[in-house]
Amino acid sequence: MKPWHCLRRAVIVMMSALAAASSARADEGLWLFNNPPLKILKEKYQFDPPKSWFEHVQKASVRFNSGGSGSFVSANGLVMTNHHVGLETLQKISSKEKDYVKDGFHAKTHADEVKAVDLELNVLMEIVDVTDAIKKAVDPNLSPEKAHEARTAIIAKIEKTSEDKTGLRSNVITLYQGNQYHLYRFKRYTDVRLVFAPEQDIAFFGGDPDNFSYPRYCLDVCFFRVYENGKPAKIEHYLKWSQGGAKDGELVFVSGHPGHTDRLNTMADLEYLRDKGYPYLLQRLHRLEVMLGVYSAYGEEHARKAKDMLFGVANSRKAREGGLAGLLDPSVLALKKAYEKKLLAAAAKNPELQDAVKAWQTIAAVQKVRAANIARYIVLEAGAGFNTTLFGYARTIVRAADEYARPNEKRLPEYAESNKKSLELRLFSKRPIYPDFEQWKLADSLTWLCEQLGYENKLVQQVLAGKSPRERAAELINGTKLRDVKVRRKLYDGGKAAVQASDDPLIKLALLIDKAARAVRKVMDTQVEEVKRQAYDQVARVKFAVEGTDTYPDATFTLRLSFGTVKGYVEDGKKILFETTFAGLYEKAKNKNNKPPFELPQRWVERKGKLNLKTPFNFVSTPDIIGGNSGSPVVNRNAEVVGLIFDGNMQSLVWDFIYTDEQARAVSVHSQGIVEALRAVYDANRLADELTGGHGK
Amino acid sequence: MKPWHCLRRAVIVMMSALAAASSARADEGLWLFNNPPLKILKEKYQFDPPKSWFEHVQKASVRFNSGGSGSFVSANGLVMTNHHVGLETLQKISSKEKDYVKDGFHAKTHADEVKAVDLELNVLMEIVDVTDAIKKAVDPNLSPEKAHEARTAIIAKIEKTSEDKTGLRSNVITLYQGNQYHLYRFKRYTDVRLVFAPEQDIAFFGGDPDNFSYPRYCLDVCFFRVYENGKPAKIEHYLKWSQGGAKDGELVFVSGHPGHTDRLNTMADLEYLRDKGYPYLLQRLHRLEVMLGVYSAYGEEHARKAKDMLFGVANSRKAREGGLAGLLDPSVLALKKAYEKKLLAAAAKNPELQDAVKAWQTIAAVQKVRAANIARYIVLEAGAGFNTTLFGYARTIVRAADEYARPNEKRLPEYAESNKKSLELRLFSKRPIYPDFEQWKLADSLTWLCEQLGYENKLVQQVLAGKSPRERAAELINGTKLRDVKVRRKLYDGGKAAVQASDDPLIKLALLIDKAARAVRKVMDTQVEEVKRQAYDQVARVKFAVEGTDTYPDATFTLRLSFGTVKGYVEDGKKILFETTFAGLYEKAKNKNNKPPFELPQRWVERKGKLNLKTPFNFVSTPDIIGGNSGSPVVNRNAEVVGLIFDGNMQSLVWDFIYTDEQARAVSVHSQGIVEALRAVYDANRLADELTGGHGK
Repeated sequence: MKPWHCLRRAVIVMMSALAAASSARADEGLWLFNNPPLKILKEKYQFDPPKSWFEHVQKASVRFNSGGSGSFVSANGLVMTNHHVGLETLQKISSKEKDYVKDGFHAKTHADEVKAVDLELNVLMEIVDVTDAIKKAVDPNLSPEKAHEARTAIIAKIEKTSEDKTGLRSNVITLYQGNQYHLYRFKRYTDVRLVFAPEQDIAFFGGDPDNFSYPRYCLDVCFFRVYENGKPAKIEHYLKWSQGGAKDGELVFVSGHPGHTDRLNTMADLEYLRDKGYPYLLQRLHRLEVMLGVYSAYGEEHARKAKDMLFGVANSRKAREGGLAGLLDPSVLALKKAYEKKLLAAAAKNPELQDAVKAWQTIAAVQKVRAANIARYIVLEAGAGFNTTLFGYARTIVRAADEYARPNEKRLPEYAESNKKSLELRLFSKRPIYPDFEQWKLADSLTWLCEQLGYENKLVQQVLAGKSPRERAAELINGTKLRDVKVRRKLYDGGKAAVQASDDPLIKLALLIDKAARAVRKVMDTQVEEVKRQAYDQVARVKFAVEGTDTYPDATFTLRLSFGTVKGYVEDGKKILFETTFAGLYEKAKNKNNKPPFELPQRWVERKGKLNLKTPFNFVSTPDIIGGNSGSPVVNRNAEVVGLIFDGNMQSLVWDFIYTDEQARAVSVHSQGIVEALRAVYDANRLADELTGGHGK
Repeated sequence: MKPWHCLRRAVIVMMSALAAASSARADEGLWLFNNPPLKILKEKYQFDPPKSWFEHVQKASVRFNSGGSGSFVSANGLVMTNHHVGLETLQKISSKEKDYVKDGFHAKTHADEVKAVDLELNVLMEIVDVTDAIKKAVDPNLSPEKAHEARTAIIAKIEKTSEDKTGLRSNVITLYQGNQYHLYRFKRYTDVRLVFAPEQDIAFFGGDPDNFSYPRYCLDVCFFRVYENGKPAKIEHYLKWSQGGAKDGELVFVSGHPGHTDRLNTMADLEYLRDKGYPYLLQRLHRLEVMLGVYSAYGEEHARKAKDMLFGVANSRKAREGGLAGLLDPSVLALKKAYEKKLLAAAAKNPELQDAVKAWQTIAAVQKVRAANIARYIVLEAGAGFNTTLFGYARTIVRAADEYARPNEKRLPEYAESNKKSLELRLFSKRPIYPDFEQWKLADSLTWLCEQLGYENKLVQQVLAGKSPRERAAELINGTKLRDVKVRRKLYDGGKAAVQASDDPLIKLALLIDKAARAVRKVMDTQVEEVKRQAYDQVARVKFAVEGTDTYPDATFTLRLSFGTVKGYVEDGKKILFETTFAGLYEKAKNKNNKPPFELPQRWVERKGKLNLKTPFNFVSTPDIIGGNSGSPVVNRNAEVVGLIFDGNMQSLVWDFIYTDEQARAVSVHSQGIVEALRAVYDANRLADELTGGHGK
């Protein structure tokens, strides 16, 4: 039956597991590298690594700014990640003539490696706690608006000072939703080249039905190489390949960049997500999925152009449906309510925390503001009413002209000096842009804009300029020159004067809506986010008082360490083994008549005889992960690669709110499966040797 | 480019066309058979047929109660319709072992014909104007609630009296949204057997991309045969086959059952559709399309089970998107506004119509009630929150028990005696029901119910009974016995006592929500529909005063006659020929690499050499049609079949609100294409001979 039928059972089991938590602590946690779970590792796993172990894993970990994780796996700059993390780049270097997504790619020599058009990789070099400096700069008696300004200013100043001093990309990260602030210093790599990618049909074997499920059979891997000064970068901290790969029952670690979790969220915040946030997002995802599916049906080239966006939308839809199912599950809600009750009771009893009780009320109170402004915020400020890459360029150019004219500390954060290089990399990307596709998306989103703000809305009428959404979309896309990188650069360099003088219709559109967009952003920034930030500072204080500080903050798309055990689970009374093999892949393809999304690439059909079919292919383990962890290495006690995270099972979709390890699992490609496929299917022995250091598999 | 890019141009051309309308009246109109456009036909086309011509065409026309049109095409009960009209029946007789939808079907002898499980066909035998009787029974001074009761009662009485007297299915039809009431008497056929259906891949060649577009290449035809007393029915009025089929420039007629139009709608009513009705419906369709697409991806059998529902949802989505695009087009709105202004000005000037002006205000005022209740109405009363066929059965059984205990005149109309036989045909259908699919749909719709009414809503909590939507859906579908026709019959026959004693979880669910569902229906029936009905009575009076009574009412899924000319059009400066050929089909399949949805069935690949490739395949003409007209015969002056309506082009999607014939076209299968395919591809010479009466093609 369908995989989610087992969700409630999982949660029930989880409840009993949590009840017994005192005896054996769960493998929970998205741990900070500057506050790793030393005690638990020692007590539960008798593992007590030196500091250098953490430093090594940290510096071997790579963040894909496009949204994912990776790791250095050779001294020569080789980076491993998921195919679906590399997908955006594969799409951007593809054309009608050469489809890297469908056909895959293998560079036989360094010279064959293909440069990505706008990919930035970051490596975390250092963490500095700047909580005191920031809290000192924001007087608790300021109005939310003033507090927001003061906080933005001090963060911009700290980042700029750090970047000037170290030359490293420097970003202040908000932890515990507002309780702590850490400065993260990253080394940036922007010369990133594609080394290897399999065909999408094997990387994403099973497609949407198998996504977020297990057992799985996916070669969801690809390799890039970072270059410096035109040569493969020399990497000190890279992960060695394990001889045997992941073994049943062994302790493993995941080092990666979980994007976002809501575990500290109060019930009021969760109820907002359940009743408004998720349904609203899902409505939009459903609309986008249909819109992209319809476009794709026009032909193979249409499908190619929409492929990565469709993948992303469907993936989010399935993840959010799973999350919402969790929020609609009374047993999940009961656990969250019980936790909240525990914190509130503790706060009420402790004189020092009396004031913190108000924080829950404050958070409940902002939900109305949030609900009232979300549609306007999403269509105008997040730009969803103008769903074309070209509007994104126009917006950036228009805003950069305004923002760069201000002192660094007064700018919107994304225009701070510390983010300028990344912004320019994206703005001047040579990615392909297809006018018919942009027009299709824009027409659909302008129609949606009418629905969201109302057709008679004055701004909507100005946007449409007397035309229908479809006609207006055609006029805008046919009229703009922003597809041309040189045009974008000239406008960007020309600043305010150039923007004001421009008659490009998308620049004019971005100018037209800018005031309204900034206004609704300000409401959200000051009346929702800033208020919540201060309130969560208090909530976190209560949490620490109850649980101590050996804990971890919610995910923030920054580097975290998780740990756990390689192990299977029981579902509907059936034992799910920890690993699958290539034999299972061929069996499943056969059972599904080799029809999409279960169709094997031709090469896999031909090479079946060359593969050792008993080789482990995918496996599950208990480390705590979430979206953004895709591409994270799974390493053993020796910090050797035993696998590659690419998914979680259906039961893990509640991890956004609450962790359990009874059935919920992270899903990985097995390190042995990767090497066996490289050698037997792709004749990529040179690459396999680079990974394994020549020690065979 | 995309087909809708030309929409606005079409409308602009239409505006000039309408401006010049005085010189040559457009081929507009969904004419009543008791008020046919005699004058226009005579003046514009010099066609002046006898009364018997209309009677013949009327009685040769067939309504598919599943939602579509058809016609008798032989003396032996042969009925022609579209494949997509027959689709529901094809799906209901299919199984994992035998897929009539995918593989098509051809009965070589009468004995091979396959009985439909719950298909009812109606033939209109007589129309009686009962306007006076109904208006007399409804005192204009009654409250809307009392007026609604009185109207429901008199209609039930008229229908029952007619049925008792004639033995014919008798339904009172509301015309002009409330200005006239006609009693329609239908002969019912319920022994309907499948004779021929092609493979869906050729019936719906081009799939969603080509749907509502032209040029087209679809064999969207299928044939049924009606039986009486176990033998093929003898049919007096059937349509003969034309020798040559549709010719460029000739006058043609379409006799069919357009489902619904909104042409008389006031601006307030249209604005409701634009701002609330259509966006809300599209949100739901997007959700359903994704839900069904995801289910289908699990495998071929999943896809088979969901196929007809997915087709219906995608088809509605595309039609509604086109309609909404029209309502968001300033030029369409300008025409509708100008028309409203004209009516209002006429009313203001005419002392007898002074009061009618208020009708516009009344209609505007009810929109708020409508908007406030639509979600509750759709999820509870329309049952969309419980999206499984099995809930539909439970609802019918629960309501029948209540309603049949009341006098006929006090019942909800669908439980009136006049509708009882049709209700029982559907309720006791032996259609296959797949528990996993029902559970999938129910889980999704219960989730949607939470979103629509709010998770904390008391009724929602009662519906969920302490479980998550997914778990509750599993419990309901696993627990119900309503899949069994015998169980349904026993409960239905047992009436109130049986229903109250039942512990079937779906019966209990239907009972649980019945009070709330009836309450919101009452609001809609009395505060919206009844009020509008009275107001539109006045609007129609103004219309008649301005335009005279040689006009037609909005579509009501009852028999109408349209007329027009076979002709091509010009789009983006390019001439679109009136007809396509088989040669074009093969060329298009080749251009699309024979990939779905442009994949030819194997038989079509093999038989290419046997086909005369120059045979006309599809063609366009100007008769006024709308959804529900699918399957309508296109006949010439001699009432001979020259084609078969199956679609409208993109430009015709505004016909819901306004007619134009500059670019908008009805799309048909050519009669010659049908016969050539039957003979050359399907070896169905016996069937072809039955159609052509042996006179070759």
